[in-house]
Amino acid sequence: MTKAATKAAALADGRIDTGDTAWLLAATALVLLMTPGLALFYGGMVRTKSVLNMLMMSFVSIALVTVVWLTAGYSLAFGDDIGGGLIGGLKHAGMAGLGPNSVHGTVPTLLFATFQLTFAIITAALISGAVADRVRFGAWLVFVPVWALLVYVPVAHWVWGPGGWIATRLGALDFAGGLPVEITSGASGLALCLVVGPRLGFKKDAMRPHNLPMVMLGAGLLWFGWFGFNAGSALGANGLAAAAFLNTLTAGCTGLLGWLFVEQKRDGHPTTLGAASGAVAGLVAITPSCGSVSLLGALVIGLAAGAVCSYAVGWKFKLNYDDSLDVVGVHLVGGIIGTLLIGVFATTELTGKTDGLLYGGGLAQLGKQLVAVVAVGAYAFLVTYGIGKLLDRLMGLRASEEQEQTGLDLTVHAETAYDHGVLGHGAPVGASLPSLQKVKSQA
Amino acid sequence: MTKAATKAAALADGRIDTGDTAWLLAATALVLLMTPGLALFYGGMVRTKSVLNMLMMSFVSIALVTVVWLTAGYSLAFGDDIGGGLIGGLKHAGMAGLGPNSVHGTVPTLLFATFQLTFAIITAALISGAVADRVRFGAWLVFVPVWALLVYVPVAHWVWGPGGWIATRLGALDFAGGLPVEITSGASGLALCLVVGPRLGFKKDAMRPHNLPMVMLGAGLLWFGWFGFNAGSALGANGLAAAAFLNTLTAGCTGLLGWLFVEQKRDGHPTTLGAASGAVAGLVAITPSCGSVSLLGALVIGLAAGAVCSYAVGWKFKLNYDDSLDVVGVHLVGGIIGTLLIGVFATTELTGKTDGLLYGGGLAQLGKQLVAVVAVGAYAFLVTYGIGKLLDRLMGLRASEEQEQTGLDLTVHAETAYDHGVLGHGAPVGASLPSLQKVKSQA
Amino acid sequence: MTKAATKAAALADGRIDTGDTAWLLAATALVLLMTPGLALFYGGMVRTKSVLNMLMMSFVSIALVTVVWLTAGYSLAFGDDIGGGLIGGLKHAGMAGLGPNSVHGTVPTLLFATFQLTFAIITAALISGAVADRVRFGAWLVFVPVWALLVYVPVAHWVWGPGGWIATRLGALDFAGGLPVEITSGASGLALCLVVGPRLGFKKDAMRPHNLPMVMLGAGLLWFGWFGFNAGSALGANGLAAAAFLNTLTAGCTGLLGWLFVEQKRDGHPTTLGAASGAVAGLVAITPSCGSVSLLGALVIGLAAGAVCSYAVGWKFKLNYDDSLDVVGVHLVGGIIGTLLIGVFATTELTGKTDGLLYGGGLAQLGKQLVAVVAVGAYAFLVTYGIGKLLDRLMGLRASEEQEQTGLDLTVHAETAYDHGVLGHGAPVGASLPSLQKVKSQA
Repeated sequence: MTKAATKAAALADGRIDTGDTAWLLAATALVLLMTPGLALFYGGMVRTKSVLNMLMMSFVSIALVTVVWLTAGYSLAFGDDIGGGLIGGLKHAGMAGLGPNSVHGTVPTLLFATFQLTFAIITAALISGAVADRVRFGAWLVFVPVWALLVYVPVAHWVWGPGGWIATRLGALDFAGGLPVEITSGASGLALCLVVGPRLGFKKDAMRPHNLPMVMLGAGLLWFGWFGFNAGSALGANGLAAAAFLNTLTAGCTGLLGWLFVEQKRDGHPTTLGAASGAVAGLVAITPSCGSVSLLGALVIGLAAGAVCSYAVGWKFKLNYDDSLDVVGVHLVGGIIGTLLIGVFATTELTGKTDGLLYGGGLAQLGKQLVAVVAVGAYAFLVTYGIGKLLDRLMGLRASEEQEQTGLDLTVHAETAYDHGVLGHGAPVGASLPSLQKVKSQA
Repeated sequence: MTKAATKAAALADGRIDTGDTAWLLAATALVLLMTPGLALFYGGMVRTKSVLNMLMMSFVSIALVTVVWLTAGYSLAFGDDIGGGLIGGLKHAGMAGLGPNSVHGTVPTLLFATFQLTFAIITAALISGAVADRVRFGAWLVFVPVWALLVYVPVAHWVWGPGGWIATRLGALDFAGGLPVEITSGASGLALCLVVGPRLGFKKDAMRPHNLPMVMLGAGLLWFGWFGFNAGSALGANGLAAAAFLNTLTAGCTGLLGWLFVEQKRDGHPTTLGAASGAVAGLVAITPSCGSVSLLGALVIGLAAGAVCSYAVGWKFKLNYDDSLDVVGVHLVGGIIGTLLIGVFATTELTGKTDGLLYGGGLAQLGKQLVAVVAVGAYAFLVTYGIGKLLDRLMGLRASEEQEQTGLDLTVHAETAYDHGVLGHGAPVGASLPSLQKVKSQA
Repeated sequence: MTKAATKAAALADGRIDTGDTAWLLAATALVLLMTPGLALFYGGMVRTKSVLNMLMMSFVSIALVTVVWLTAGYSLAFGDDIGGGLIGGLKHAGMAGLGPNSVHGTVPTLLFATFQLTFAIITAALISGAVADRVRFGAWLVFVPVWALLVYVPVAHWVWGPGGWIATRLGALDFAGGLPVEITSGASGLALCLVVGPRLGFKKDAMRPHNLPMVMLGAGLLWFGWFGFNAGSALGANGLAAAAFLNTLTAGCTGLLGWLFVEQKRDGHPTTLGAASGAVAGLVAITPSCGSVSLLGALVIGLAAGAVCSYAVGWKFKLNYDDSLDVVGVHLVGGIIGTLLIGVFATTELTGKTDGLLYGGGLAQLGKQLVAVVAVGAYAFLVTYGIGKLLDRLMGLRASEEQEQTGLDLTVHAETAYDHGVLGHGAPVGASLPSLQKVKSQA
């Protein structure tokens, strides 16, 4: 045991609260489920020919970000600040000095580190929605770890790390990840889809979701996991976790209602895709704010996010960026709404110190939130744009036209999502695809 | 902070148990997952043309019931009784007086309120199974909040509210919702399907489930969530929760076996739909009883529910009510079985005071259970019938014949569940559905 | 209350830790979800004509093993040893003497018993993957309880029961089930598929997975549940659970990467089936070892399992055993890797006493692990082979050729997995299957 671990072990006696730890264990598992949930949410939205590629982009993010996090990411994000509130040190690189007896607050440090890791994972996976159906798989395998290290890790340090400048110097609030997760993934998605360019047929072909029940399943799993995400961010089983939980449910509900209301008025049809997107928009917006705003705030924030995002997803057609599955329209816009409205609806009852505009706190907090939003959004956009451009030059980001036309599933993964063969009763379909014959080890 | 919140905060010191709170946080998330699970369970059972409508009926129930609950429902159900054990007051309307420091037993009051909310949500969603494929979506959006307020909320008060007449005056037992959830949804489903009338082609067309793996997925998620539902109803992490958990697993298992046994004998085939339905029937029946009966009781209750419900789902064909997805046959019948058999299998070891017939308690408890079943069943049936008739007159409950024929997905939601386009390898299908062209914002 | 229960109740005062209990309640629910998850994982891999049969084999395992466990299994596995460390007594048969106040460690005994039950369930269900598409359903209904009683229960006693010879005499380590779960299911799967023989068309037809998104969904649910499986095995919410959790995530990730790396090198394609299989292989291998090895150990164990198993799944084609869904290649091989490597990567920090080869512990532990692997593998193989042969003679294990050709779904369960009827927009398919007409009660 290293010296640091010995010290941590000494500190640990009687300090872990089993109830807090029990909730954080469950919450961590819940957040991890969100990435497979996201994979299905995204996978159902794309066309049949690239479902598997979409799923793969999420699943490999789990693996790649984990490796980055354990080797250096955790230490850089949550290690002691090395100056300026910009980044942590490498003291815990390789998780050095951390053992089963290390304690963070009232929970094991290894659990805290794993909980935070799950946030980094889904943030990287979220970006894939902006560049669906057209990215070289090999380039994605390089992009994810580089992006996690250069974008997610610093922003997480700014907002949640010891001495991070946004939390300690600026004083902006972000309970569960409006800045590191939602705005970062949204701004990065925008940057990356600009580098990669639109799908073939963008604005011409219908590109309807191939499987909406899969989208709804994904949305259901996301919502379920989101309770771990938001209420877990209390890092304990207490009244704050309870308030964050209820706020999370509330905003998801009003997000759903807000989106459907706009759809009905605008298009004459309330859609399932709208219901799922609205719930997610509300959940995105309540993520930063769930631990600081009143119940009324949660209601309004969700409703606003649902309504506004239902318009925001149309911007791409006017401004010509192919944010295929609406990472910008939902996560960037929803994240901004939720992070800013903390400045309006924050209540001392939850924050302990800060009131928002509505509760007599003036404009001060709103200003801090705005600075944080701009700083994080700009940083994530610029760095991701740079990474994208560099990778494009070094190895090529975009799949070939033929691959995109045929579909990435068959051309990259040598698989097709479905082989119903016998459809209900009989006629074999596609039993002799030549290019699949050799993949015999998968039977 | 309001006066009541100050008082609650004062009471809170040292009173929240983090372990109990941790389990209730997890349990609340589990119960919330049940409604998306139910959506898939139901969605898999209908025909392809109305899958999305089925999913939507569940998802909007989450949103609508939440709004009702927060504005008035929680206060009416769990606020102090205003006389006669019939209904609570409006003291906590809008969740007034409840903050992060409010405590209910050993858990935060906001968490208790959210846990109870999840029960109200799924109960409303359950009803949709009785009227699948043929209800105007707009009418459902009105029905759900009205029904939640007029039916669920009062019954919840009677059974679980402070001073509720069933719990305190009658003395009937209901651990996790045989009365407010199962019997209420079942009786209301019966009433509503009588008002709405049968599907076109009822008893003539086959109307086979379009996707049985989806049904099984839904059943799996329901079962998973049911542990939160039943063991969570102990409101703490203790031996009672453990006993309720084991009883829940046991009855689901014997329900599955009972149904398959009958099917094999009667039809010569054990079906997956039977396995799923049998497990659900067993789970329904153990819901009221899981916290009061012996393990033997759980075995018998599950087995009885599985076997009896496998016959009860056939009644609709003889009696001519189109309870499309068997809400009556499973939830009403299973709920009655489980609520009554508490009178037989209750054991002091769990209840602390009441023994059933089998353990020397005589017929007294059985009589109380019967009164409660009749009262709740009749109330739910009559009030729902009234709501249904009124809505039918005011706005029309039933979709047009053309909508029903074409399917509600396309005509109401402007979507189709699946667009495989490329089935395994090639030929594009339905790429140019004219009526979908305009829904470009969903690409 | 029986005498034993009275005693247990007396002991219980103040001994249950609510935090530990909260985590074990959640963990038990998580492990139970793994079996529906496995059903989908397997169900997606088979051809459309036998999806439902695959799902049913898992679902009935839940029911059958539960009945066996409650009547005798728990007592035989976890009751006091009756001599030699080979089997427990029948003192708790029918769960006699166990009530809500019984305590095991810091959790309710009923909860401990239920947690252990969930392990027995999934182990039985795992075997079905080795004999997909061709087993008589009636024979499976007999096989499962017999196998659970004769194979799972004794091995669980050896490894985890009070006085079990592997734990107490041999001193081999197994935190969460490399021996009772992985090696037992893998060796039994090998035995059973040898008895049953290969599928018609084995090595000739492609037999591609009919639904890879379903496989990925199953993999996601399995991974989610696995945190309950492994971190729950700490039987409490503590630093050991946290370390086991992180090790579990880590090994799943490197397993995924290891498999994809080999695939890319060998076949030129990273597949989704490979990603899912690799993650599962890593999770299998970390199951025995998650509570005893260092983080470096978890990394290496996962990577080794992913890489080796990606070759091991090809052995069946060379050695001519039709382990259809790779129970041998993944669970037997992965289980052996993980159980043996404890001897290399075990660290006193977690085990409290034992260091592996890498940390200066010499070869002693490796030798013990090897003995345990050989003993359990041989026992499971031989007894299962015997059960299989006996059942084959008594009732016939193998479905008829016609059933297999047509598919077990239609011939055994009188159902088909899908009836899309209207594919996206119109033409009814299979609306008049004669053999399904009579199953009207399922509409």
